[in-house]
Amino acid sequence: MVNIAILGYGTVGSGVVEVLNTNRDSINKRAGQEINIKYVLDLKDFEGDPIQKVIVHDYDVIINDDSVKVIVEVMGGVEPAYTFVKEALLKGKSVVSSNKELVAKHGAELLQIAKDKNINFLFEASVGGGIPIIRPLNQSLTADEIYEITGILNGTTNYILSKMSKEGLAFDSVLKEAQEKGYAERNPAADVEGHDACRKIAILSSLAFGMQVDFEDIYTEGITKITDTDMQYAKYLGLDIKLLATSKKVDQRVYARVAPMMLGSGHPLANVHDVFNAIFVKGNVIGDVMFYGKGAGKLPTASAVVADVVDAAKHLERNIMSFWSTEKMGLMEIKEVPTQYFIRIKGSSSDMNVNVQKLFGAIQIVQLEEIDNEFAIITEEEAEGELNKKVEQLRALTSEDAVLSVIRVEN
Amino acid sequence: MVNIAILGYGTVGSGVVEVLNTNRDSINKRAGQEINIKYVLDLKDFEGDPIQKVIVHDYDVIINDDSVKVIVEVMGGVEPAYTFVKEALLKGKSVVSSNKELVAKHGAELLQIAKDKNINFLFEASVGGGIPIIRPLNQSLTADEIYEITGILNGTTNYILSKMSKEGLAFDSVLKEAQEKGYAERNPAADVEGHDACRKIAILSSLAFGMQVDFEDIYTEGITKITDTDMQYAKYLGLDIKLLATSKKVDQRVYARVAPMMLGSGHPLANVHDVFNAIFVKGNVIGDVMFYGKGAGKLPTASAVVADVVDAAKHLERNIMSFWSTEKMGLMEIKEVPTQYFIRIKGSSSDMNVNVQKLFGAIQIVQLEEIDNEFAIITEEEAEGELNKKVEQLRALTSEDAVLSVIRVEN
Repeated sequence: MVNIAILGYGTVGSGVVEVLNTNRDSINKRAGQEINIKYVLDLKDFEGDPIQKVIVHDYDVIINDDSVKVIVEVMGGVEPAYTFVKEALLKGKSVVSSNKELVAKHGAELLQIAKDKNINFLFEASVGGGIPIIRPLNQSLTADEIYEITGILNGTTNYILSKMSKEGLAFDSVLKEAQEKGYAERNPAADVEGHDACRKIAILSSLAFGMQVDFEDIYTEGITKITDTDMQYAKYLGLDIKLLATSKKVDQRVYARVAPMMLGSGHPLANVHDVFNAIFVKGNVIGDVMFYGKGAGKLPTASAVVADVVDAAKHLERNIMSFWSTEKMGLMEIKEVPTQYFIRIKGSSSDMNVNVQKLFGAIQIVQLEEIDNEFAIITEEEAEGELNKKVEQLRALTSEDAVLSVIRVEN
Repeated sequence: MVNIAILGYGTVGSGVVEVLNTNRDSINKRAGQEINIKYVLDLKDFEGDPIQKVIVHDYDVIINDDSVKVIVEVMGGVEPAYTFVKEALLKGKSVVSSNKELVAKHGAELLQIAKDKNINFLFEASVGGGIPIIRPLNQSLTADEIYEITGILNGTTNYILSKMSKEGLAFDSVLKEAQEKGYAERNPAADVEGHDACRKIAILSSLAFGMQVDFEDIYTEGITKITDTDMQYAKYLGLDIKLLATSKKVDQRVYARVAPMMLGSGHPLANVHDVFNAIFVKGNVIGDVMFYGKGAGKLPTASAVVADVVDAAKHLERNIMSFWSTEKMGLMEIKEVPTQYFIRIKGSSSDMNVNVQKLFGAIQIVQLEEIDNEFAIITEEEAEGELNKKVEQLRALTSEDAVLSVIRVEN
C-alpha cells in the first residue's frame, strides 16, 4: 500500500478522488499496490462528504507523516504550492502536480531536487489536461532532435475562435456565451490574453530543448482583437484562425511565441475545434506527430494526475523524469522571427495599390465583395521587425488608422 | 556503454543505424550511456558500406556474446524472428522489435519471459510506425478503463482512399499509381485486404484489455471493393471512407473489426489523410484522445525503435512493460455487433420503395442526380446479422444483383 496526500479539494482534487474510486481495481493493479488517500489538505471541512474523514487543515500533519510517499498538488498558483512541493521533495516524498504556473516557474529546480533525492516530480496534467504529452516527450521521442512544438493549448480560446468561425459571431458575444456556459472564467484574461498558453509552451519548450525557457521571455498576444471580419477573410482564403503557442528552432536558435495565427486547412492543427487541444511536434527523424484530446476538465485532468500517481507509486525510489537544466535559454527576439502577415487595410485597393506595392512588392490583393472600403494582403515571409516597419510606413504614407488588423499566417 | 545487435539490415535496420548515427550525442545522453552497435545480422555482406565491419551471418555469435545486452529485431515475419527473440530473452537480453506479425502472434508469451527475467520486450514500432502509442497505452492511460481503440493503422490504404476521395479515381488506377510511387507493395494483399491493420489492432486490443486477442478471430475486410461511385455518395453525404481497425467494449463484451467505414467529418479520424496514421482512444475518465503521425517509413519507424533501445538501455535489469495475459479473450461474433449500413441498390427508388420500407423502415432515400438507375439508403443501427438477413431478403424480393454495395457507417 502506498499512502498519498492530495493538496486541494477543488475541481481537479475532487476529480482525482473520483477517478481513484471509479477505477480502483485496475489502477491498483497497474500501480502494483493499493493507492490509499491518507489526507486531503483543504481549508474547508466538507461536512457530510465521505472525504471529510481524511481532511486536514495543517500541511505539517502531512509533511511530518513518513508513511506518506506521494503528494498530489492540485491547488494551482505559485504560492503556497511552491513552498509545499519543495518541502515535500526535500523530505523524500514524490510529487505529482497539475500546476502550470508552478512548473513553468520552478520546474527545473524541483526536477533537480527530485533527481538528487532519487524520487519523482511529475506533471503530465500541467499541459494539455488529459493529453499524454510530457511523458511522450520524455520517454517516446528520445531518438529525435525536436525542432518544433506548436500547440493549441487553451480550450477556452479555441472554443471562442471555433464558434466565431462557425457562426460568424463577434468576439464579445461569444465570450459572454462561453462565460455563461462555464467554458470561460468570469475574469477571462489568463485565457484570452494568452497567458495560460504561454506558461504551457514554456514548459514544453524547456523539456524539448533541455534548458530553462522563462515564460516572461515568450512573446504573447491574445485573441481579443480578432474580429468577425477577420474571420470572414480567413474563410475566404481557406484559412482558420487559431491561438497557437509555438516554439521553433531556426538554424541553431529558438523562438517562442503565443499569438493568433491564420492556419492553412492542410495543417493537422486546423482540424482541432471547440474545447479540444492538440500538440504538434516535429522531430528530425520521426517527422510530424500530433497528440489530441481534452485540454482541460475535471476528469481528463484527473486522469493525467492519477497516471502520474501510478508512475510515482511504481518508482518510489527511482527517478524517471529527465530534467531540464536550470541554465536559461536565450530566445530569439520577436523582431527577428520570420513570419508572414495578413494585413487588412482601410480604403480602396486601387487608390492604395501604389503604396502597398512599394512596401510589400507585387502581392495579391484580397477583396471581399460583401465588405466595402477595405481590402487585405498577405505578405511574403520576412522578419517581424521588418514587417512592422513596413506597417508603420504604410500608416505614415496613408493615415494612422489605415491598418485595420494584422494577423500572422502559417500556410 | 551498452552493446546492441541489430537483426536485419533492411529498410528499418538501416534506418536504426542512421538514426543512432545522426542523433548520437542526444541519444547517448538520454540513455545515460553510449549505445554501441556491436553486430548486425544479415545474409549479405554489404561490401564497402561502413556497416560491413560489424556484419555477422551467424546468430550464435550474437546470442553467445554476453556483452550484448539489447537485441533489435527488425527482420519481420514470424520465423526465424520468434526463435531468435525467444532465445535472446531466455538468455537475459532485452529485445526491441518492430515486427507486428511476431508481436500479434507471440507478444503475450514474450512479455511474460521478459517479466520473469526482469528484462524488457519492447515493440513501440510494431504499431503506428513513429507514433507513440504502445508506451502511452502502457504508462500514460493507466488511470483509465479503455473502452474503444479505433485506428487508421495502414498508410497504403489510407493513401489510396484519400486519393480516390480527392480525385474521384477508381481503386485500381490509384493502386497502380501507389505501386509505382513505392507507397504500395507489388503484392498489395497484406495492406489492401486489411491483414496488416488486423495484426496491429490485435496488438492494441491485447494491451488495452490485458488479454490475448488472436488476430485470426478479428473480422477483417479490405478496401478492394470500394468504388469511385461509393466515394461519390460518401461525399454527397458529407462522409469519408476510411479503413478503420476497431476494438470496442459493448456492455462487458468486446468486438474487434477491420473494415472500410463511412465516417462523419466531425470524427477526429476523418481528417487523417494520405499516408498518415492515427489512433483514437476512448477512456472512461480521459474521454477522447488521439495520436497522429507517420505510420510507416524508414526514419519514423526507426525513431520508435531507437526510443525503445534508449528505454531498454536505461532499464537493463528492470521490467517496465505491463504484460497482457496469455489468457484468450473471447470476442463478440461479427453478427452480434451493432452497426449501420450504407446500401447502394440498383433500380429506381420509387419502384423499390415498398420493399425497402418493409425491410428497413421509413428511412431516407439518397439519390444522386448524376447517377442513373440506382439509389442508396443508410439503415438504422442494428446487429450485423440482422442487417445481413435483410440484405438477403432484399435480394430475394428483387434480384440477386440488386445490392451494389454495402459499407458500414460511423456517423
